[in-house]
Amino acid sequence: MLSKAVHMWTVTYVPAPGVWWLGCQNKDMDKAQNAPVSLISMLARFAEHWAPKKIAEINDYDVKIVKLHGEFTWHRHPDTDEFFLVIDGRLQIQLRDGDVTLTPDELFVVPKGVEHCPKADVETSVMLIEPRGVVNTGDAGGDLTAELADLT
Amino acid sequence: MLSKAVHMWTVTYVPAPGVWWLGCQNKDMDKAQNAPVSLISMLARFAEHWAPKKIAEINDYDVKIVKLHGEFTWHRHPDTDEFFLVIDGRLQIQLRDGDVTLTPDELFVVPKGVEHCPKADVETSVMLIEPRGVVNTGDAGGDLTAELADLT
Repeated sequence: MLSKAVHMWTVTYVPAPGVWWLGCQNKDMDKAQNAPVSLISMLARFAEHWAPKKIAEINDYDVKIVKLHGEFTWHRHPDTDEFFLVIDGRLQIQLRDGDVTLTPDELFVVPKGVEHCPKADVETSVMLIEPRGVVNTGDAGGDLTAELADLT
Repeated sequence: MLSKAVHMWTVTYVPAPGVWWLGCQNKDMDKAQNAPVSLISMLARFAEHWAPKKIAEINDYDVKIVKLHGEFTWHRHPDTDEFFLVIDGRLQIQLRDGDVTLTPDELFVVPKGVEHCPKADVETSVMLIEPRGVVNTGDAGGDLTAELADLT
């Protein structure tokens, strides 16, 4: 993220030779990228459900947000844990041996290989963290499989 | 977390041979462990500043919370990014090319190798995520180096 640059075009009148000068400068955007990421602002940028958006990276992990409403599909991630933090609403993570219900400021990590099915009776916003490339429907596939959009 | 077990001792009378049977069973505690982790409840369990507590794991990453007040020490983590999410208060992440100020529900990832110095003018609570074993003071060391306590 910190390596992004923009081309800054400037038009300057140089009095001594009496000419106009057109200049282009690659401006380092490091400083402009030193900005916080607001969960609330990021959530305001989309409305669809079950479609995770990437908002940050931690090494080879993605930080994502997603809006949920209704029931997802039973699935498991054979190679990774999955982190859920509820920002708004109420998330029921159904597990084969019982449910975990999360309200705002509550988190849960579904362990690697454990079958689960998220469900939200009201619209719910969640922050997810998992390794890059993990598919939302895990081993189940199907119509709810979503390509990850990038909001960074 | 889900592999914790308790030893369940049972005493049973077996009528056919007419004997008492003492049995021990390793009871899987998965179900009891299916509980959300509340950031607020976890924060209520300690008061000290600059002493991160582990509250969950994502594969080989630790999810930690920490209370901050005052200024930390300039340091860098040569091998990893560092994720900050402010839960309460106001966090200023000082960087050599400018500061990033985070209020609740705002996050920032300090890139690997980038020197930084957290500062909080009011008491501030933060969730951190980074690979297991990362030391809070990075390459700087010193008196503020804290051993990670485990609240899981």
